[in-house]
This record gives sequence, C-alpha cells and structure tokens, in this order.
Amino acid sequence: MQKGIIKLKKRPCIIASASVVGAHEHRGPLSDSFDMFCEDNLFDTETWEQAESEMQRRAFNLALNKAKMKDCELDAIFAGDLLNQCTGSAYGLCDFDAPYFGLYGACSTLAESLILSSMLVSAGIYEHTAAVVSSHFCSAERQFRYPLEYGNQRTPTAQRTVTGAGAFILSANGEGPFISEVLPGRVVDRGFKDINNMGAAMAPAAIDTLWRYFSESGKSPSDFDLIVTGDLGYEGVNIVRDLLRKHGIELSDNYNDCGLMIYDCERQDVHAGGSGCGCSAVVFAGHLMDRLKRGELREILLVCTGAMMSPGSFLQGLPIPGIAHLLHISAK
Amino acid sequence: MQKGIIKLKKRPCIIASASVVGAHEHRGPLSDSFDMFCEDNLFDTETWEQAESEMQRRAFNLALNKAKMKDCELDAIFAGDLLNQCTGSAYGLCDFDAPYFGLYGACSTLAESLILSSMLVSAGIYEHTAAVVSSHFCSAERQFRYPLEYGNQRTPTAQRTVTGAGAFILSANGEGPFISEVLPGRVVDRGFKDINNMGAAMAPAAIDTLWRYFSESGKSPSDFDLIVTGDLGYEGVNIVRDLLRKHGIELSDNYNDCGLMIYDCERQDVHAGGSGCGCSAVVFAGHLMDRLKRGELREILLVCTGAMMSPGSFLQGLPIPGIAHLLHISAK
Repeated sequence: MQKGIIKLKKRPCIIASASVVGAHEHRGPLSDSFDMFCEDNLFDTETWEQAESEMQRRAFNLALNKAKMKDCELDAIFAGDLLNQCTGSAYGLCDFDAPYFGLYGACSTLAESLILSSMLVSAGIYEHTAAVVSSHFCSAERQFRYPLEYGNQRTPTAQRTVTGAGAFILSANGEGPFISEVLPGRVVDRGFKDINNMGAAMAPAAIDTLWRYFSESGKSPSDFDLIVTGDLGYEGVNIVRDLLRKHGIELSDNYNDCGLMIYDCERQDVHAGGSGCGCSAVVFAGHLMDRLKRGELREILLVCTGAMMSPGSFLQGLPIPGIAHLLHISAK
Repeated sequence: MQKGIIKLKKRPCIIASASVVGAHEHRGPLSDSFDMFCEDNLFDTETWEQAESEMQRRAFNLALNKAKMKDCELDAIFAGDLLNQCTGSAYGLCDFDAPYFGLYGACSTLAESLILSSMLVSAGIYEHTAAVVSSHFCSAERQFRYPLEYGNQRTPTAQRTVTGAGAFILSANGEGPFISEVLPGRVVDRGFKDINNMGAAMAPAAIDTLWRYFSESGKSPSDFDLIVTGDLGYEGVNIVRDLLRKHGIELSDNYNDCGLMIYDCERQDVHAGGSGCGCSAVVFAGHLMDRLKRGELREILLVCTGAMMSPGSFLQGLPIPGIAHLLHISAK
C-alpha cells in the first residue's frame, strides 16, 4: 500500500514557468519576479471571467516559449481555477492542441496539478506535461461574495484573491528544479463555518498534511530552506504554527506563506493576506523558481491549501472542508 | 512523445462497482442493474445538493463493501460532479480516510477519473484507487437552468440530468474487467451556443476522440462488441453517426449511448435522453459491468462526453467547448 509520501524514482524537472498578474500584485514586493501584468486587470477582454481565461492563455504561452516547445508536443495539460465549472481553464486553454485534464482542488489546485503531472512523468507514461491554474480578484468577488460595484466591507480575517495565472512545463529530463516527493492531501472537515476566515478553515488540512509528512519521513522542518504554504494568510499561519508546536513540530523562520509574500499586507490593505489558486501559482512560478534556480533555495516544501465549500453549501449551513497537497522540490 | 492512445502495459482491474439512483432512473429499463434507489430523491437529507453528496457516500461505501476493502486501504480517490466548486464530491467523501483528487470534466468526469486512476495503477505508483462521480436532476436544474418550482418547459433537444452516483474500485490485480487502453480528450470548441442542446455541443468532441482512436489504432468499430458514448442523447448520437460516416467510419448497431439506454425516453418523457456525470457512471457501474462480467461483452469502448460551459459563460455569449475521454475495456 502506497498511501503517504510518494518518492518519485525518476524526478521530473520543471523546465519552465511563467506568471501573469494584475495591477495590485504588480505593485507588491514580488513585482520584479512576474513575467507580465495588466493595469486594468481586463487583459483586453470584456469581462473579469474572460480576463481570467486570457491570463491562463498568456501564462501558458509564455511558459511554452520559455521551454521552446509547441502545445502539440505536450502529452497533457492539467488545469483548474475557482470559477463555477472551472471555465477559467476550459476557455483559456481550448485553443491548444493537447489532451486536457480539468481539476478542482480549490486554492490547492496548483499542487494537485503538479502532483498528478509529476507522478505520470516520473512513471514514464508522459514525457512533457503542463500545469496551469489561475484566480482573479474581480471574478472571485462576484462569484463567492458580492459584485465589486456593491463596495461591500471585508472583515479583518478576510483575504484578497490574487489576480494571477501560473503555468509550468514539466519534463522527464532537465537541469532542475526537480520534484522529489509528493504527498496528496485528504479532505479534512473540522466543522469550521466562518466564510470570512478561509485561513482558519484551511489550516487543519495544512496541519494534517505537514504532520503526516514529518511523521512518515522522519525529517524535521530544519531540513528545508523553506516551508511555504499556499494561501493561509495571517490567520491560518498562526494556527498552523501553534498546533504543529503542540504536536512537537516547530516551524521557525524558514516557514512562510505565499499569501503573506505576495503583498505588503498593511500598505496594500489586503487584510489577512492573499489567496486563490493564482496566489501560490505566481509566487512559485516567479519568486520561488528564481531562487531555486539561483541556488538560494535548495530544498523546499510547497503545501497548497484549498477550501472546498461553495456559496451554496455555505448558505445551506455546511462547514468548510479543507485539503492540502504537498510537494518536496529540490534545486538539484 | 506519448500523445494519443496510451496502452496500459499492466492492465488495471475494476474489482468492484456500485450505483445509486433516483426514482426516475429506477423506473427505467435498467432498473434491475442498480444497487440502490430512493423514491423521493432526497436520500434522507434536506436539500438536493446534500442528497447528491449522500448518493456519492452510499455508492462509494457499497463499492468498498463489494471489494471487501476499507477506505484507509485505498491509495487515492478521484472524484467529481457538476455542482459549483464540485461540492457533491467534497462533502460526500470528506469522511473517508484516503488521499483525494478533485476533478472537473463536466459529464466526462467518469472517464477522466478512470483514466487517471488506471494510468497510476498501471504504472505501479498506486495499487488500489477509487473513481466516484455523481449528478442529480434537481440540483442540476436549480444550478444550470431554473429551480424545479418554476415548472419551466424544456425544449425537445434538452436532456434530463440523471440522478445517480457511480463508484468504482480499481486494483493492480483481479479477474477483470480490465482497462486496456485510454485516450484522454482535447478541448474542442466548434462555436456551438445552444444551451438547450448539449448533445450537439458535445458531439464534435466525441467525433474528435473516436476519429483519433480509430485512425491511430488501425481498428474499426466492428472490432468492438459495443461502442458507448456517455450522454449525447438522440441529437448528439445522430451527429456522431453522420459525421464519422463522412470520415469513413461507420458506426453500426453496436453503437449506443448511456443517455438513450437509461430511460425509456418516450414513455418517461425525457426528451432527447439522459445526461450528467451520473448517466455514464450508473449505466457502466451496473448494466455494462454486469454484461462484461457475464461475458456477453468482451471488448468495449466507453467515451464519456462533457460540455465545459457554465451558466455564467453562457450569459456572456460564449460558445460551449466540449471534451470526450475514451477507455477501451476488456472482459478478459
């Protein structure tokens, strides 16, 4: 039985990555690491939803160019987003000539797509795959909360959905970074119901996955240059630190969260931090990939977290199940 | 490059399957092949959406029982449905102890989940996996069209979303049926926009996949006891027959569609046939698996079709992209 950590015998290489972001992300501290941004967040389209698809299309094209590949040379695309029926991906990628697997892991979709990609490349079934995900502040607000025109106030625990798309090309061969291990997450439901505190809702899943990883591997947090969660924000990060400490796992300064890295949270007024599929995708595609390639980071754990509720399930009074998928990525 | 048909070297076995359906499906011609039904379609819950989750939970439990397995013995669950944010699966399967991959392939999700499962089992990365999908007439009408209480009229080309959940347990070892080959689909957009004719919207994707399969394999339709599409209904089936004939591929009496098999379409007033993730799932889990195990069918092609639009993308005037994933299943 192979239930926990999957050690990839032949480690797939991330040969290219690309990121496309909105104006708010462009004005944040990681600005230089993104490939492209758009001041009005519409990306030459007429609606926020079509803008999200366009971001995926551009990020994917950029990644293909960096990898010097054509779409028809890919064995498969793994893609997803937060929109109803995952239309961000279906419309963004419908013009490309490659087999398509649509995924839904909420904000954890980046890790889900990289895990499935890397297992199939490692096994030799595929040689080249792509992982593409996105989120858009304006389409997410309209769908999950209120249209922007309402000008509703947000609670201090709320996070800002990142406007961004990330695309990655994986290959059986390359010079790194490599995906060394993966640990797919379980659905974790602890009865949490506050729709304005996604960080707290997703934290139990992150704890479950990190605890399983350290228990099974025998490693400790100090074995990694960076442990980075996807989008827990201030609320979730503090819960993860506190509860893992009670389990004897001390996350020190090498722990961070993409939702805290992408914005200067106070100056940019984003409350508890960034969130969304695009959050971990653009931070990893840009800033983290750059640092891995420069050798500043050698071994990292990327843990993408997702909240699996819908506006409908919230209105029906159901709790928010979470999930967290983990990747161990090595520079060499 | 491995882009088209993937021949599974070590063929995974479907060791168990289970189906749970609603009252309308129970009164159809395949009634005897389903494991469980519920007269009021609520399955002891309070909402249609929770009923859909409950169907997944029951179908998955039934399949585990038939396989004489516990959830914790599974390496992974691949699951999906049509609800916004795929909550049918997330809530239906959140109590089970197994890694979870959420998928969205619209009505093609059954084939997508079986393809990913079978590639990973064949490669030896996993030993036991599950594929679980569902749809529910009442939750789908509320979400994609109008709440049932409005009593809206449906066009002759409309299909009825099947109330049903199917669950499958795959294993590296077993006595059959086996998954011999898989062919993942591409997103196909031919500009079709009629939201009340899903069969016609999905037909181009089915044609693309079937044409690729027969071209690449060199086989002909007569090499199979049955070629069965997921939920094209009368409209889609006729388009597939006509256009494949123009490409020199003649589908004879051995071609059928789960959407036409599940209902006595005229007597049960379902217009163009059945549709939804649950359609192909319960027809395959029950009727087709029974016939494969009895030896009445030896080699079949299962081609599940999906329409990747959302109510939002329709309102924005976008066309309906389709996708079709193919599995070649052998009794022995």
